[in-house]
Amino acid sequence: MGVKMKKLVQCVPNYSEGKDLEKIEKIAAPFKNNKNIKFMGCEPDADYNRTVITVIGEPEDIVAAVVESVGIATELIDMNVQKGEHLRMGATDVIPFIPIKDMTMAECVELSKIVGEKIWEKFKVPVFLYEESATAPNRVSLPSIRKGEFEGMKEKLKLEEWKPDFGERTPHPTAGVTAVGGRMPLIAFNINLDTTDINIAKEISKAIRFSSGGFRFIQAGPAEMKEKGIVQVTMNIKDYKKNPIYRVFETVKMEAKRYGVNVLGSEIIGAVPMEALSDSIEYYLGLDGFKIDKIIENELLK
Amino acid sequence: MGVKMKKLVQCVPNYSEGKDLEKIEKIAAPFKNNKNIKFMGCEPDADYNRTVITVIGEPEDIVAAVVESVGIATELIDMNVQKGEHLRMGATDVIPFIPIKDMTMAECVELSKIVGEKIWEKFKVPVFLYEESATAPNRVSLPSIRKGEFEGMKEKLKLEEWKPDFGERTPHPTAGVTAVGGRMPLIAFNINLDTTDINIAKEISKAIRFSSGGFRFIQAGPAEMKEKGIVQVTMNIKDYKKNPIYRVFETVKMEAKRYGVNVLGSEIIGAVPMEALSDSIEYYLGLDGFKIDKIIENELLK
Repeated sequence: MGVKMKKLVQCVPNYSEGKDLEKIEKIAAPFKNNKNIKFMGCEPDADYNRTVITVIGEPEDIVAAVVESVGIATELIDMNVQKGEHLRMGATDVIPFIPIKDMTMAECVELSKIVGEKIWEKFKVPVFLYEESATAPNRVSLPSIRKGEFEGMKEKLKLEEWKPDFGERTPHPTAGVTAVGGRMPLIAFNINLDTTDINIAKEISKAIRFSSGGFRFIQAGPAEMKEKGIVQVTMNIKDYKKNPIYRVFETVKMEAKRYGVNVLGSEIIGAVPMEALSDSIEYYLGLDGFKIDKIIENELLK
Repeated sequence: MGVKMKKLVQCVPNYSEGKDLEKIEKIAAPFKNNKNIKFMGCEPDADYNRTVITVIGEPEDIVAAVVESVGIATELIDMNVQKGEHLRMGATDVIPFIPIKDMTMAECVELSKIVGEKIWEKFKVPVFLYEESATAPNRVSLPSIRKGEFEGMKEKLKLEEWKPDFGERTPHPTAGVTAVGGRMPLIAFNINLDTTDINIAKEISKAIRFSSGGFRFIQAGPAEMKEKGIVQVTMNIKDYKKNPIYRVFETVKMEAKRYGVNVLGSEIIGAVPMEALSDSIEYYLGLDGFKIDKIIENELLK
């Protein structure tokens, strides 16, 4: 019955091993062995030769487990012989920290720094901080850091602008380089338009997406749903706090009117934090003084 | 990582002791001693001489704890000397079971029967099943069962129509009679109207409430918010699955138009299950195939 809300962070480390299930089991073990960590998924991909693990827990538990797991991956994976279809630069390629509950982004950035420092100190794997944790503009995007892949890191790290945030200018001989950072959860959100005209979806996508001058955290494009005889504006919401679902939805409705087209509805693909929805319910009901901890399920997670 | 969702039930037993904190502590102990039970609150009221305990947990844990707690209340409370402002018929006066997550009402009714039977068998306190668990129309409402209070139960139980559902036609000499039943969670929902005319709130209340021919599970009335210079339609939603929030809200908006009055917004008082909100978000966004277990927090409660 603590007054303090439990902080929850999601961690989605990517490892460059997607075939050897015994090794993957060992890498996943530090998460599975901690009963306070919710193990949400482990998805090995043999073609990619890569495994994505998704876990949620309190910051301290997650930090301890992910560092231990990186140590195991560092021992088990040799990047000199690793081959797969997915771009990669390290045995543990990337470790994102995502705020889920009662965590600020600043706290996730702090976590990423703690983990980055430990990875260098314990395993001598150099670390770049990326996304919200980035210390320079060229380090924000993972593809930009990863460019050159494992094989190119030796030369890349010697470049003035590619000094790692933790560690020296030489990649780990077998485990390469790892990126660690805080980022917001992505929400995959699609809006259905009652037309078969893909150009209308294209125009509306342009109106809302950042790359064409729209909302700062929206990536969007058109999609044809041939079976249903409709088109979609398909999007990623990269920061649902700054670009809430209802705002994008209402803007698409407003734009669709211009073409005399109805918005039929929408769909959310994959998981979504409650906050991303409760914000929209507040908008539609004009809720006064609503707090997310009034939701019983949230109370149960305290 | 079970596939089975964890079932959660809320239990809100009311005990006829609101002054002696030592006794109350003993009555609450079976809930507090079970770490799997979420202890949401214990509210003793000295004037009422009554304590309301709110707990949430899995059905088996809750059944065991509430039966033990009733045993302790039966020992500690003597209704022959108990006095307070609140109507009461037993040491444990009433035990509602409320479905919170992945529970049907039928399962709550089943729970109430299990608990009712045990209370009679173990402590010889006769039990009436009420609300959704009622076995006859005159047993649906608690006030109807409780009429006559502790002092009148001796005579009442002898009446043909007041044979207890469990136990004999004689109240427990010191602990009286207990009501047990399943019921839906109440949602206290208020809608703000941009007018000072209380009659408009009165007319709209009539349009939506059951007692005047409106929605089956709505109790509503007008309220003046003098400081804010507005009026409210204030209501209880007794079954948010059958009368969802958005439907009531949109109906009030529609009626308010008739008077040229704007709906300013709304407020939810107290706790609300996520399902009661997710239903409305589905409506407003026209969400296709949305399932509540896509919400990360729900995944965490599995």
